Amino acid sequence: MRRDFDGEVFVRGLKDLIRTIPDYPKPGIMFRDVTTLLGDAKGLKTAVAAMAEPFEGERVDAVAGIEARGFILGGAIADRLGCGFIPIRKKGKLPWKTIGQEYTLEYGVDVIEIHEDALAPGQRVLIVDDLIATGGTADAAVKLLRRSKGEIVGATFIIDLPELGGLELVKSHGIPCHALVAFDGH
Amino acid sequence: MRRDFDGEVFVRGLKDLIRTIPDYPKPGIMFRDVTTLLGDAKGLKTAVAAMAEPFEGERVDAVAGIEARGFILGGAIADRLGCGFIPIRKKGKLPWKTIGQEYTLEYGVDVIEIHEDALAPGQRVLIVDDLIATGGTADAAVKLLRRSKGEIVGATFIIDLPELGGLELVKSHGIPCHALVAFDGH
Repeated sequence: MRRDFDGEVFVRGLKDLIRTIPDYPKPGIMFRDVTTLLGDAKGLKTAVAAMAEPFEGERVDAVAGIEARGFILGGAIADRLGCGFIPIRKKGKLPWKTIGQEYTLEYGVDVIEIHEDALAPGQRVLIVDDLIATGGTADAAVKLLRRSKGEIVGATFIIDLPELGGLELVKSHGIPCHALVAFDGH
Repeated sequence: MRRDFDGEVFVRGLKDLIRTIPDYPKPGIMFRDVTTLLGDAKGLKTAVAAMAEPFEGERVDAVAGIEARGFILGGAIADRLGCGFIPIRKKGKLPWKTIGQEYTLEYGVDVIEIHEDALAPGQRVLIVDDLIATGGTADAAVKLLRRSKGEIVGATFIIDLPELGGLELVKSHGIPCHALVAFDGH
């Protein structure tokens, strides 16, 4: 196990590296911008190490990263865990045959896709994204990976917005979930 | 220096992990799909290690990954090099104040953007993407990073399409460039 982060104290310090942008993308939303954390060498290393850490004792065959910020973290976590990386992308972005999963947005629906041959049956997959809010995307990722006959090892995020209940939604599928920091509000 | 790839022989073997999709996204194009390589545990580790390796003796303050596949590789390379990660994104995707750079496509123009405070002056940046073709995007990334007062350490790719001249274009700016495998045609 690679422990190149300074434990809980520094993980809590990650919160200070996240920039809050009020009223983005629309009035009333406090947007949590992780680019300031990712751009910090120690912040990136700490986040990646701490996100990977709960799953280092387990068999993980692939990390499934959710487009786009989940790609940055997911690539690094896959490299640390010594497994493959599978992109979960927005509709129409993958070049080969895909299966798609709809999920509900505030207004209307959206679709995420995975290559239909991305997983071999029974492969154990870890879901990675930067933030979980209502959990709509993560929940769609769970359905997509299960339809691909994958077994989901867990899901790991930097930020949880507990008031929106996303982490509890994913946990309700029997999936171990971890987030490093939590913010009030949404 | 972490040498957990099996040297040149295995790097050449990476080529077999890349799927070619004929006539995608349009007739006459042979699309080189790296998702099959990224999904392979040894393939991902080898690619990331070999892409990082030429820059491991240098001071690198940040990896700039180009959306979206450059995020997967760039996150892992930044984690290996112990530096930060900066996203270079398509227009309208970054939440804070940005600077943009136009580049020419076959028909029309497109724009990539970076946060205006992503770099401190003099920071040394490594550009990462999965593939270089004509080099239009990479060339725009070079201009954007230099306008941000960054110093460019190099650029590293999995795939080069030498007939399209992109690697030579980026090298013409005095930037060391590396690609792991080359394919004929475009």
